[in-house]
Amino acid sequence: MRTYLDCYPCFLRQALSAARQVGANDEQQHAILGEALALLQTLPSGATPPEIGYAVHRIVRERMEGGDPYRALKDQSTRAALALYPRLKALVAASPDPLETAVRLSIAGNIIDFALSDELADLWATVERVLAAPFAVDDLGVLRAALDAADRVLFLADNAGETVFDRVLIETLDLPVIYVVKGGPTLNDATREDALAAGLETCATVIDNGSDAPGTILRLCSEDFRRVYAAAPLIIAKGQGNYETLSEAGPRVFCLLQVKCPVIARDIGAPVGSVVMRQSYSPL
Amino acid sequence: MRTYLDCYPCFLRQALSAARQVGANDEQQHAILGEALALLQTLPSGATPPEIGYAVHRIVRERMEGGDPYRALKDQSTRAALALYPRLKALVAASPDPLETAVRLSIAGNIIDFALSDELADLWATVERVLAAPFAVDDLGVLRAALDAADRVLFLADNAGETVFDRVLIETLDLPVIYVVKGGPTLNDATREDALAAGLETCATVIDNGSDAPGTILRLCSEDFRRVYAAAPLIIAKGQGNYETLSEAGPRVFCLLQVKCPVIARDIGAPVGSVVMRQSYSPL
Repeated sequence: MRTYLDCYPCFLRQALSAARQVGANDEQQHAILGEALALLQTLPSGATPPEIGYAVHRIVRERMEGGDPYRALKDQSTRAALALYPRLKALVAASPDPLETAVRLSIAGNIIDFALSDELADLWATVERVLAAPFAVDDLGVLRAALDAADRVLFLADNAGETVFDRVLIETLDLPVIYVVKGGPTLNDATREDALAAGLETCATVIDNGSDAPGTILRLCSEDFRRVYAAAPLIIAKGQGNYETLSEAGPRVFCLLQVKCPVIARDIGAPVGSVVMRQSYSPL
Repeated sequence: MRTYLDCYPCFLRQALSAARQVGANDEQQHAILGEALALLQTLPSGATPPEIGYAVHRIVRERMEGGDPYRALKDQSTRAALALYPRLKALVAASPDPLETAVRLSIAGNIIDFALSDELADLWATVERVLAAPFAVDDLGVLRAALDAADRVLFLADNAGETVFDRVLIETLDLPVIYVVKGGPTLNDATREDALAAGLETCATVIDNGSDAPGTILRLCSEDFRRVYAAAPLIIAKGQGNYETLSEAGPRVFCLLQVKCPVIARDIGAPVGSVVMRQSYSPL
């Protein structure tokens, strides 16, 4: 997905939010905002939102040497999600269509997103909404067939906490799964530590993509990961960041997400709040 | 009120919104956003949000030669408000405290703000909410006393359509009123044409401030207006723009507004949605 002009204000907001997250004082916030303004004036054309978001967050990291600024919030998300784990498992066990229920739960988990709201949403209310909502884009039938044909799944994680919901889906799949987290901290995206805290090593092989950018920007990923990616017969990609970078990555890729911003809503053609299960197109 | 860092994303959003309002194509929107980014990098310290907003909107005007881009929306606002006029008058007539009711209605009218939402809000729902809400800042008693002592009122208008609600308040005051509109188009702010369409000339002397900036930036106003302003015993100032420019303009000034953005909410110390009736402080 290309970057829209409407993303520019959002990048500034993210720069400020991240700066505050790592405890920047007024002067530091001002300097970071100034650098972000300069960056936005010289964007390479065709860059996706995560590529620019990555550059914006790098400004904050370089100025603040912050380590993992979202660590505490990520831990809190994982704990909140783990508390729901038995109820999520019970929902799948009681469902006439366990795959659909597990897919919906994995999408429900995508609401854990501090990049946008800075607050932990009411998780269970989201679970109930997403279980009941019609898919705005519904390629579940195609995914079902692709899962039947595939001998393994590459699963691209999004946020910490959401990982627990992904685990429920993976435990439903009955296929070997490689679960891919970020190679370093970026926003509240899951790193290896977050995947392990959510118990993913009990149901999947956890690897990282060698990159600390949001989404999946292949040219920034490690060669190891790119090999795994190239060989994967079926890829489940979670969240807006992966949608933004992989929406045209071809029919092996299935994007599972909630639409959280008006720009992505316009790109997908479905309103904010929509539940989306979408097979990627091939690049034009 | 000073400009907060949180205002920066909002200025970009306003630049885009105004550019689209005048029909800018993608390339023009991109150029306008680029100029806005450059402007934000060189802000004079101490500038109020309306001063920066003014500079941002000037970029749009200079690129697009747009005349009055909000003309159609302003006309629509005035018509929508005029349709409510008889009901507003009836509310005041039936009230045990006509002044308070009329003040509340004038504040309710402040919801007509395309700068923020681009959509006409449900006016009557807002009227009922503002009639029932406690004042988050309540200097009504001071205003009442000041009105008893004053021989005339200077009334600084905000948006078109809101003008109709102001008219109801002015008709309740029983004092000579000078109603001040903008000297040229800026956002959906009322100009002379909008005041006349709302019938203000039947209850007040309508003048303009000689400036096409939002709020009341005295150094940009005409000398004539500055003389009238200096001599006024009591000033009613409507909306966020006037609050941002006059919140420290001294105890002659009473700001009537709804809090619509988190930055002003923090400055006033009351949440978004609050109904505010606040006497200005003296400059420090």
